[in-house]
Amino acid sequence: MKTKKIKVGIVGASGYTGSELIRLLLNHPNVNILFALSKTNNKRKITDLFNDLIDETDLSFVDKINNDVDVIFLCSGHNKSIEFINNNQIKNTTKIIDLSQDFRNNNFHEKSNRKFVYGLPEINKKIISKSKNIANPGCFATAILLGLIPSVKFNIPEADIHINAITGSTGAGIVPKESTHFSWRNNNITWYKPFEHQHLEEINNTLKSVNEKEYNLNLITYRGPFSRGIYCTSYFESTKTIEEITECYKKFYLKSTFVKISKNEIDLKNVVNTNKCLINLKKINDKILITSVIDNLIKGASGQAIQNMNIMFDIEDLIGINLKSIIY
Amino acid sequence: MKTKKIKVGIVGASGYTGSELIRLLLNHPNVNILFALSKTNNKRKITDLFNDLIDETDLSFVDKINNDVDVIFLCSGHNKSIEFINNNQIKNTTKIIDLSQDFRNNNFHEKSNRKFVYGLPEINKKIISKSKNIANPGCFATAILLGLIPSVKFNIPEADIHINAITGSTGAGIVPKESTHFSWRNNNITWYKPFEHQHLEEINNTLKSVNEKEYNLNLITYRGPFSRGIYCTSYFESTKTIEEITECYKKFYLKSTFVKISKNEIDLKNVVNTNKCLINLKKINDKILITSVIDNLIKGASGQAIQNMNIMFDIEDLIGINLKSIIY
Amino acid sequence: MKTKKIKVGIVGASGYTGSELIRLLLNHPNVNILFALSKTNNKRKITDLFNDLIDETDLSFVDKINNDVDVIFLCSGHNKSIEFINNNQIKNTTKIIDLSQDFRNNNFHEKSNRKFVYGLPEINKKIISKSKNIANPGCFATAILLGLIPSVKFNIPEADIHINAITGSTGAGIVPKESTHFSWRNNNITWYKPFEHQHLEEINNTLKSVNEKEYNLNLITYRGPFSRGIYCTSYFESTKTIEEITECYKKFYLKSTFVKISKNEIDLKNVVNTNKCLINLKKINDKILITSVIDNLIKGASGQAIQNMNIMFDIEDLIGINLKSIIY
Amino acid sequence: MKTKKIKVGIVGASGYTGSELIRLLLNHPNVNILFALSKTNNKRKITDLFNDLIDETDLSFVDKINNDVDVIFLCSGHNKSIEFINNNQIKNTTKIIDLSQDFRNNNFHEKSNRKFVYGLPEINKKIISKSKNIANPGCFATAILLGLIPSVKFNIPEADIHINAITGSTGAGIVPKESTHFSWRNNNITWYKPFEHQHLEEINNTLKSVNEKEYNLNLITYRGPFSRGIYCTSYFESTKTIEEITECYKKFYLKSTFVKISKNEIDLKNVVNTNKCLINLKKINDKILITSVIDNLIKGASGQAIQNMNIMFDIEDLIGINLKSIIY
Repeated sequence: MKTKKIKVGIVGASGYTGSELIRLLLNHPNVNILFALSKTNNKRKITDLFNDLIDETDLSFVDKINNDVDVIFLCSGHNKSIEFINNNQIKNTTKIIDLSQDFRNNNFHEKSNRKFVYGLPEINKKIISKSKNIANPGCFATAILLGLIPSVKFNIPEADIHINAITGSTGAGIVPKESTHFSWRNNNITWYKPFEHQHLEEINNTLKSVNEKEYNLNLITYRGPFSRGIYCTSYFESTKTIEEITECYKKFYLKSTFVKISKNEIDLKNVVNTNKCLINLKKINDKILITSVIDNLIKGASGQAIQNMNIMFDIEDLIGINLKSIIY
Repeated sequence: MKTKKIKVGIVGASGYTGSELIRLLLNHPNVNILFALSKTNNKRKITDLFNDLIDETDLSFVDKINNDVDVIFLCSGHNKSIEFINNNQIKNTTKIIDLSQDFRNNNFHEKSNRKFVYGLPEINKKIISKSKNIANPGCFATAILLGLIPSVKFNIPEADIHINAITGSTGAGIVPKESTHFSWRNNNITWYKPFEHQHLEEINNTLKSVNEKEYNLNLITYRGPFSRGIYCTSYFESTKTIEEITECYKKFYLKSTFVKISKNEIDLKNVVNTNKCLINLKKINDKILITSVIDNLIKGASGQAIQNMNIMFDIEDLIGINLKSIIY
Repeated sequence: MKTKKIKVGIVGASGYTGSELIRLLLNHPNVNILFALSKTNNKRKITDLFNDLIDETDLSFVDKINNDVDVIFLCSGHNKSIEFINNNQIKNTTKIIDLSQDFRNNNFHEKSNRKFVYGLPEINKKIISKSKNIANPGCFATAILLGLIPSVKFNIPEADIHINAITGSTGAGIVPKESTHFSWRNNNITWYKPFEHQHLEEINNTLKSVNEKEYNLNLITYRGPFSRGIYCTSYFESTKTIEEITECYKKFYLKSTFVKISKNEIDLKNVVNTNKCLINLKKINDKILITSVIDNLIKGASGQAIQNMNIMFDIEDLIGINLKSIIY
Repeated sequence: MKTKKIKVGIVGASGYTGSELIRLLLNHPNVNILFALSKTNNKRKITDLFNDLIDETDLSFVDKINNDVDVIFLCSGHNKSIEFINNNQIKNTTKIIDLSQDFRNNNFHEKSNRKFVYGLPEINKKIISKSKNIANPGCFATAILLGLIPSVKFNIPEADIHINAITGSTGAGIVPKESTHFSWRNNNITWYKPFEHQHLEEINNTLKSVNEKEYNLNLITYRGPFSRGIYCTSYFESTKTIEEITECYKKFYLKSTFVKISKNEIDLKNVVNTNKCLINLKKINDKILITSVIDNLIKGASGQAIQNMNIMFDIEDLIGINLKSIIY
């Protein structure tokens, strides 16, 4: 453990991912939150907006950055990160962890001369540790990639890959809208953007980075009647045995702190409110079925951002993100 | 049954109560919907907005009234009904059933010379049948009043009355807001307007109309994690036996089509999606506990409005509102 | 409308499908319920078990059949229907509508010399009308088949078919178990029986009956955090245009009372508490995506059983099952 | 921090409170779980039953105690704790923390000569620290008492106290039953044991221990459609100002680690998955309204048990129970 604390700034601090960062970082022993920027909540106490944090912090939201930070988390949403870097003079030595999709596929920001590394620690830990700028993966991308990467790496799929992934209402952001109205979403379900979800580009690029062979991915994403979590099933044909495949996965994730292979069936709430990703593997006839689950706000966003920070600052993985599951 | 159909117009037809009216009236054998007015959805097909009605109607929303109607339902919300009557030339012979609170307590509209009757059929059936204008009761008021009226009428409470009533998210209207965001409301609960809910005036006035004796009502209203329904408990001290009290209630509601006394414990879903109000009576030590449940959008709004229409047009009570409960 | 009422008996009357039958048949103008058999609730009043039916019936559960009925609905669950027919002397003239899977695939009961017709009215209306014994389709089978039959009939799929279907907790029956414990199921999701659901046989047989060509069906079924309904997506490759396909579906379901093609996106609650099946068709690149939704207890069980009864007794389709959706 | 770890045993380790203890204690830096006793799951790996704990422990359930422990948590349910102490030879030096109600009101166990202290740290911290046996408070009792104790201590209520408290499905235990069937509980609500809840004795006894003056408590407890948490409102008449009362509460809870006075309105999810109790105070006319919320399984059971253990072993309060809220 380092004695000097990491000075942290959070931009877009009053949304779902921003506030989860605050919740987690307030208990991170190596971190000191220097500022939480939220233009819409400027000057309000954090605890006025987030009652659950009462007595844990005296900070108020601000509308300007403090340049004395070691790392800035950008949580303002898509397109807003580029805009933010364009409009703010961020010190060259300050690290950036961007939770938007702005730098996941186009990873260079010319004006600031910053190059972003795709922050999926399970494949990029080494470069992340040496990097200054991280493009934190999307939530669907994280759940799907962690389920598929070992298969793709070891050429296990022998045909198209079919993916179904269902997310909770926090995936749709904090601003109330029709698809997050309780009267609509309660007890309901729909797909959205079938076969065309915006994370597909990031998923395809990442899979290509582990194996040049291309696979057709057929992805349907769904909105589910729950708040948190992504439940993902992927399947494809393979002549490999389940033992061979399980062996590949176990080896691949051997040193992973947060990704675990479960021989038992898994459900969404096994990981809700944690930074874990659980994976279950099953062979039925000629089909391999991979089930992967994460909490979209933790491993799919703020928890993974902290995991990346820990790696960048040479801190043990679990620090600050060793969380109790909600389970019931 | 009349051979000529009642020509109906609905104002504010794309909100929760307006659209429930459409759903119900499309299956009402004596009704013909002439217009469904919704300025925000002008010219859109009703079935474009409400997929569940597909193939049941060809109507489109309009932005002007058709004066050839026999009755207009006003569903635009509080203060909007007065505004609507001020700004529209409604024929003198057209009946009005207002679902807002505009005429519940101040029941005269000077400009149009219209006097409104409080449309709680269980106490006002006779005047409703002769009336031209109805102030349809509030949802909380309906659940609470149906539970309390016989007690108050027969002087059963011997001290203050304590009421807790919890409502679903449809009670908060169709426009998405913080308190109806799924991420917030799911698995959550809060009170709102404790001891000061706006329906208290209407409740007090109505109770006074059945018995001049005044009671202190202590009402806490809550927001619950469900879409539909109001679950209400009222209690007070009384030396009367449970048999005496049950007898009073059974007699009072003997001819009621929709209010039923249940000797078994009741739950919210006993009435969801129906026009029923179930009441359970229990004595524990010196306390009388009255539980009453309704569907806030049906018996608490649109169903009761149709019940009033049926009475005004001399149609059998159940017609159009004899509905299957959701129960599971 | 016939003047003489159909005399009905229900076996397994206290489960989910049995009690939904009671709810629906009590309001069916052409039906008289003669008995509701439930051994576990013998002699209890129906309204003691189902509070929502208070004042709608005086019937009590019995433990023996009354042979004076015109039709018996069997709702006791799988394997129990064969057992029931084996152990009871049912009059030869009494019709049977079986809601279990006992006669869906093996449709002849030797001892009683009864032959069962697969009761999916959208393809078998004519034989149903002349039949004495109906094997009512499974809930998943109904949702999936109604979505796929026109495609299969008109040779639209040009490769394997991929199906995801998620069901509510009522699909798991009324006896409490781990997978229906609220603490587990609330906000949760899992698959079950992936690629091996027991309805696959019935689905394959039925598809073969409309087109001899065989398709590979890849079906994953899921448990969802809601009470009622099945939401189903099916997709496959096709070079047909969406206009051609939509035309096929519209023509196929032209005279269908309950199956509707929606050009708008559909969600589960569009049909919950109704006998409808809504279908949405969409082409994305080379994929055809078919979304179909039903209420598992109504169109997937008791409502469809009544639809079959209506056809067998030459009654208009909608009678008794023209229901208001819950929608919110 | 001590260097020698506390050796812990858990009896009834596979239920809700037992397994929450395991989850929490696995991350407690000062604790070593020696055994987790569950007769029904004897020899099964803990992670086979609780997938969320995968890779966190190698322990299996056992059916006998290991007498080499420093403290035993009893989580087997009411009446089972007495039975357990009767039937097992527990070393005299071993501390017992009992989560059942067996010793809350009758606090002496003759055979073992053990005297139990009521483990509500906010009033009994000092005796707890010196005690060997703790009767861990009930979940409703905790929520209600923490809301009322300062009022009662400082003679604030001037009339009867009215309490409404609603609990989630985990309050009903892990064995599936009718009232925890998802199909019933989803979107539903009912009271149970109105005015007669078994925690009333414990609440009354505890209030009397802080102030001899007796108050009438009118308590209605409800079952709510959520998994975790208790939301409690208490009100009474008082001439004291809200400022005076708030001052009392702030002073009373000044050194409390987990009880916080919130000037903002609170909701249930502010505390779910944490050991906190939030309290909001409000005066409306002559009524004081106290809202208090806890997680029934954490502050209402396993978290509070660990808080008591921390006190007994002279460990800082927060250790092992400084938890992130679920909030969304």
